[in-house]
Amino acid sequence: MAQSDRPRVVIIGAGFGGLWAARALKGTHADVLMLDRNNYHTFLPLLYQVAAAELEPEHIVYPVRSILHRYPNVRFLLSEVTGIDFTAHLVKTREHVFPYDYLILATGSTSHFFGVPGAVEHAYQLKTLEQAIDLRNQILFRFERALCENDSVRREQMLTFTIVGGGPTGVEFSGALAELVRGPLVKDYPTLNFSEVHILLLEAADRLLPGFPERLQTYTLQRLRKMGVEVRLQATVSQIAAEAVLLKDGTLIPTETVVWTAGVRGEAPPASGEVQEAHSGRIKVLPTLQIKGQPKVYVVGDLAYIEEDGISLPLVAPVAMQQAELAVQNIQRQMRDQDLLSFRYRDPGTMVTLGRNAAVVQIGRRTFTGFLAWVLWLSVHLFKLIGFRNRLLVLTNWAWDYLFYERAVRLIVPVPDERV
Amino acid sequence: MAQSDRPRVVIIGAGFGGLWAARALKGTHADVLMLDRNNYHTFLPLLYQVAAAELEPEHIVYPVRSILHRYPNVRFLLSEVTGIDFTAHLVKTREHVFPYDYLILATGSTSHFFGVPGAVEHAYQLKTLEQAIDLRNQILFRFERALCENDSVRREQMLTFTIVGGGPTGVEFSGALAELVRGPLVKDYPTLNFSEVHILLLEAADRLLPGFPERLQTYTLQRLRKMGVEVRLQATVSQIAAEAVLLKDGTLIPTETVVWTAGVRGEAPPASGEVQEAHSGRIKVLPTLQIKGQPKVYVVGDLAYIEEDGISLPLVAPVAMQQAELAVQNIQRQMRDQDLLSFRYRDPGTMVTLGRNAAVVQIGRRTFTGFLAWVLWLSVHLFKLIGFRNRLLVLTNWAWDYLFYERAVRLIVPVPDERV
Repeated sequence: MAQSDRPRVVIIGAGFGGLWAARALKGTHADVLMLDRNNYHTFLPLLYQVAAAELEPEHIVYPVRSILHRYPNVRFLLSEVTGIDFTAHLVKTREHVFPYDYLILATGSTSHFFGVPGAVEHAYQLKTLEQAIDLRNQILFRFERALCENDSVRREQMLTFTIVGGGPTGVEFSGALAELVRGPLVKDYPTLNFSEVHILLLEAADRLLPGFPERLQTYTLQRLRKMGVEVRLQATVSQIAAEAVLLKDGTLIPTETVVWTAGVRGEAPPASGEVQEAHSGRIKVLPTLQIKGQPKVYVVGDLAYIEEDGISLPLVAPVAMQQAELAVQNIQRQMRDQDLLSFRYRDPGTMVTLGRNAAVVQIGRRTFTGFLAWVLWLSVHLFKLIGFRNRLLVLTNWAWDYLFYERAVRLIVPVPDERV
Repeated sequence: MAQSDRPRVVIIGAGFGGLWAARALKGTHADVLMLDRNNYHTFLPLLYQVAAAELEPEHIVYPVRSILHRYPNVRFLLSEVTGIDFTAHLVKTREHVFPYDYLILATGSTSHFFGVPGAVEHAYQLKTLEQAIDLRNQILFRFERALCENDSVRREQMLTFTIVGGGPTGVEFSGALAELVRGPLVKDYPTLNFSEVHILLLEAADRLLPGFPERLQTYTLQRLRKMGVEVRLQATVSQIAAEAVLLKDGTLIPTETVVWTAGVRGEAPPASGEVQEAHSGRIKVLPTLQIKGQPKVYVVGDLAYIEEDGISLPLVAPVAMQQAELAVQNIQRQMRDQDLLSFRYRDPGTMVTLGRNAAVVQIGRRTFTGFLAWVLWLSVHLFKLIGFRNRLLVLTNWAWDYLFYERAVRLIVPVPDERV
């Protein structure tokens, strides 16, 4: 059988959704092409640790080509998709046009600022590796600058770090930042007065971690406050400037670093043909994960908007991974003219880490806090990484590479601007 | 005794020279200030491995503040020196002016292009961490681009990597690049025709590693050629363009990546007052390492030009480290009105690694090649790192940090442009 007779599946995006789809398609009859604008996969659940200078950027990314070595029917191309033609079944990049028989859209999400003035220009984000490095640099630079500043009001403004959004990312990052400041930075800057350092966590609702069980919300609030994070509830940001944040109630907070974790929106390439958008750029999909009216196009991960029992699914890796697997099953069923399956999320639980030895975990109706939750968090991330690399423990692999200098860091980051 | 009575020593530069000077001043009567434009020290001997995607950037740098924790009389400031006033004994940065009693200049060297047209604009360099990352990105991007290129002539141009200069850096980098290409990249790009990949090493002289014993030169040439590096001797570059290199003999080499390792020049901040410059921006110093006519100013490392037996000393870390120690001894002698000592280099030997299991080593009159030389190279770098961290094995430390996620990556890199 000629290569050209094999059904062509194009996957856009090398996040959890895209990679899990590629893995599910491994060894099948399909001829798979994966496109991404980076040549690496980012393990987003640990991105905030890069921003908090806890992990090196290279430790949470992995070259896509290294993962795909073992998938002979999957090709990869470093390329930004510039458009999709749903009618002609084409994916366009700057250089090429790729026809597809089946398309899996897994391009994820980006920050959503809800139109807050100044947010786009001044807020730091935590959605890409570059953003995390940028934020890390900003934080460390503020301390260096503060050393040279004789005006204590200006110094306090430099050393005030404001995190907007009390969801999992905001909570995890503010905890990690508090540990960075109270630990290594106190040693690095012995002449600074650390009572001038403020870590503010602003949440518009009246509690942290909205949607979590109350016990975990209370524990999180108490624990973060104990760690020195100044949590302000019912604090809605109305404007962000280079050196301050304005709240809806008129409070002006002098701060040179504002981190936005308060919302995300879907991020899809421009497409011709009708797409039923839900809200915030996310694409409404059928229970089969197809786009209505486009039976050959599947959407998985953050970009897919789907409700279960009237509630939209959370934007987390397990949803993306399970959706990717179902999308591939449905593609295979389509090829065999079988009935398609509907997506049903099997919730493995949710966990948020606050710092060393402290986390909150919800599994089904059970909740855990403190050291036990932290150990659970560690184990699950280890387990996820095992699944991710399929056969080898990634951590062991990395440690081995590290010890024996075996690792080739084949990452194109930061993306060069001028030279390309 | 009041703080202000203590002699103020300012060290400019946190390379080997600057750090070893700080270490020698630790615990003395002096009040030491170290200035550098980065907040990290770069272990330059391994920089080429970052460019060859062998090591992660963070593995060869170390936060200066972490090193100086143990030196209570040494302060650090992240700052670029904008000028020195030798008459008034002042060091100027953008924000401050620091008076000094003694000054140690250790600002190192930068690339020297000898006026070759196009070199500044188009050549990649191997003198800073940013340059190494930039070069790594360029190399990896060329392979991604080549995948999308249907014209084989254009493809070969993209996949031709030209290294100018057959000294230690050029030799080490071309060997490491050959290993990257023939190992990981062959696996990453199974559809590429690797006979289109060329690694060219151009050397103007009639031999590689000028100044080394002939046995080592011959071994290096044979070994590199066996590794697939196309070495061209007596090849002088006369012009560099974005997509080609022109040689003096008229040969035009189509290549999109030119790496310049053919020369370095001293890099000193602008100074008022008379400075006797030797050549290529390096400052001629007395045998005591003082600048003539400026008895309170010492120059160490690449920036210092000094001859022994009519031959100028090589620009290597051991010279910088030994000079730093002598400069500090002489400063202490000046304080006590004692006679100053003259610098005499104790050559610990020279080593150049060509790849896994292959290196050349010269210690005194003895030479080593192959696996034994490679093991020597590894051991010496381990030993250097031990000396550098004083009490702990850095490699063990790093491995430990890595395994247990203890390490705080407090590095400001890449330097943010817009936000500061």
